[in-house]
Amino acid sequence: MTRATILDYAKRLIAQPSITPATGSVFDEMEAMLAPLGFEISRFIAGDSPEDAELGGPVENLFAIRHGAPGSRHFSYAGHLDVVPPGQGWQTDPFVPEQRGDLLYGRGAVDMKGSIAAFVGALHHLPDDLGTISLIITGDEEGPARFGTVAIMDLMAERGITPDLCLVGEPTSVNRLGDMMKIGRRGSVNMWITVNGMQGHVAYPHNADNPITKLGKILSEIDSLQLDEGTDWFQPSNIEFTDLHVGNPAHNVIPARAEGRLSIRFNDRHSGESLSAMVKEIVERHGGELKPIISGEPFLTPPGEFSDIVAGAIREVTGVDPELSTSGGTSDARFLAKIMPVVEFGLCNATMHKLDEAVAIDDLEKLGEIFALIVERALR
Amino acid sequence: MTRATILDYAKRLIAQPSITPATGSVFDEMEAMLAPLGFEISRFIAGDSPEDAELGGPVENLFAIRHGAPGSRHFSYAGHLDVVPPGQGWQTDPFVPEQRGDLLYGRGAVDMKGSIAAFVGALHHLPDDLGTISLIITGDEEGPARFGTVAIMDLMAERGITPDLCLVGEPTSVNRLGDMMKIGRRGSVNMWITVNGMQGHVAYPHNADNPITKLGKILSEIDSLQLDEGTDWFQPSNIEFTDLHVGNPAHNVIPARAEGRLSIRFNDRHSGESLSAMVKEIVERHGGELKPIISGEPFLTPPGEFSDIVAGAIREVTGVDPELSTSGGTSDARFLAKIMPVVEFGLCNATMHKLDEAVAIDDLEKLGEIFALIVERALR
Ligand SMILES: [Zn+2]
Ligand SMILES: [Zn+2]
Repeated sequence: MTRATILDYAKRLIAQPSITPATGSVFDEMEAMLAPLGFEISRFIAGDSPEDAELGGPVENLFAIRHGAPGSRHFSYAGHLDVVPPGQGWQTDPFVPEQRGDLLYGRGAVDMKGSIAAFVGALHHLPDDLGTISLIITGDEEGPARFGTVAIMDLMAERGITPDLCLVGEPTSVNRLGDMMKIGRRGSVNMWITVNGMQGHVAYPHNADNPITKLGKILSEIDSLQLDEGTDWFQPSNIEFTDLHVGNPAHNVIPARAEGRLSIRFNDRHSGESLSAMVKEIVERHGGELKPIISGEPFLTPPGEFSDIVAGAIREVTGVDPELSTSGGTSDARFLAKIMPVVEFGLCNATMHKLDEAVAIDDLEKLGEIFALIVERALR
Repeated sequence: MTRATILDYAKRLIAQPSITPATGSVFDEMEAMLAPLGFEISRFIAGDSPEDAELGGPVENLFAIRHGAPGSRHFSYAGHLDVVPPGQGWQTDPFVPEQRGDLLYGRGAVDMKGSIAAFVGALHHLPDDLGTISLIITGDEEGPARFGTVAIMDLMAERGITPDLCLVGEPTSVNRLGDMMKIGRRGSVNMWITVNGMQGHVAYPHNADNPITKLGKILSEIDSLQLDEGTDWFQPSNIEFTDLHVGNPAHNVIPARAEGRLSIRFNDRHSGESLSAMVKEIVERHGGELKPIISGEPFLTPPGEFSDIVAGAIREVTGVDPELSTSGGTSDARFLAKIMPVVEFGLCNATMHKLDEAVAIDDLEKLGEIFALIVERALR
């Protein structure tokens, strides 16, 4: 592949503003890149009924597939074209790709239009008959993700398509390209705690029932939980309280209600369900109510053939030995891992979601080389 | 005294709207009642500079004194002419006294225009030369009380006036007139706790410092405090958390700050200062900051001559044996008790601060008789 191709693809994608949820022109650009490479392209809008608006709809999605010989293996690349809002204070227009020195600036440069550009660039240098290759490209990974990757997976299920392997191109590198790849992600669950008491005057506490006292006991008991000590591949699961609310302006009044919210990032020793049951028992024993919302279950693609291929390609191109990590937030890999082995690898994430997001042009080139090696070896 | 006089006084006072802080016409009415009885009357406005507005100013105050023979004892009655806002939903106009059956309706009927009316009515039936009698009447007891009774006490101090005894006419009766009098009140202090942490993403807790965890430990440690087990005359001191606040809308963010507020009602084993130091030590040990505001120190007029006189008069008129209590919220007695023995006694408090506040007309009459007996015996 040529430096010019990937850089050009990246610029074309950045030039189409696509704040999450994305639809329209950025997908036109994507389609225009893939069609000449022999892909069948399906685009569709999901979440377009009026009530879907508050769940993040409408969202555009694209599934592209180029079939190999019957019986050949199927490699899939997954990514997103939506970006987080740029915010105020960029040195140049975030949606006008700007090359300065060795860097390409623009919202999505590393997360993850640059990665998608590198993958499409890599396809130029692979034979057509290598095997089946598909791209799972959503317009909502940065938002609620209710009508994104999961909708594409529904389409794939309808068509009976299950890839053998999936590479998610999220920016996993930390200090230099190749230093980290992900073989799993922790699960995530948020929980809302409500404790109802009985309002009263602080001078007559026996006529009242202070919900803050109960919430305090709940907080203390939850704080003392040790969920696990981590596994070979995962950090220990962790609970953080993220909010407290009473909203009582009166100094001399015991309030009627106290609320708390917590967030748990957990490894594969637990499920969203098992943790919800554990916390619910504590909360209810102290007279409170719990409402959990599971954002994602953990996944792990145990080290093996696929991770070896990815790590080997990284090492070969960059000379760096990647850490096989399961750290960080959730990604769409939490959905994709339900149907196939998933590994995540991509650009350096230092500037993702920040002002003046930028990618090293040399990294774009190298990432294309790595992707080409991975696909070739995975389909061989 | 005649039923007509006290009832008429009560109606005249209720008819002058005087939502806290009170000034003007209700004091004109008060002055018009006392002047014919030979009292020297001092009225003044306190807290009338612009910056006093947020502390509850301006407030009108009245000090009335009728001197007895040189060397005679000095009995003082203390009360307030301001009332809490009536709120919506009264059956009749809260500032138009309305007699229905055995009851007189109107804001202030029991708290405490009815009590003041009963005291002035009682004066009609006492000889002029009994001793020195004074009335300490403020227009701000229901509000911040920064420019009320304390301002009258300043005036008294300037003039070198210190009564021997003070009866505060607040509504202390509970189910029937005479069932409770107060010989003390607990102290009150509110405390604001702020814990600063370091904001971060829940997926990377080692890069953050969760202030809710610390606030939870503070809450738990404070909850386990047992301040005392009460005294002969006081309930155990009690701590109640009254508010919690974080205000973090982001589910995946560890917040930078958590706040709590608590209220302590305490007996004479403690002072606002000693409790503030105790809680401050806990809060600071967990990395938080404390801001205490002391609303009032506790006071106790140990049972003795004065309480015997009050209880005896109650028993004689009503046949009820009053409980000598120190329960309930604060009153201006917290200020007055610094210079003289104070006992509180008044009407039934069932409807105070409520819709359709009402006093039994028979209670007004009986309260006048009780007050007359108390003054006579206290000055004898
Ligand atoms: Zn991303
Ligand atoms: Zn009152």
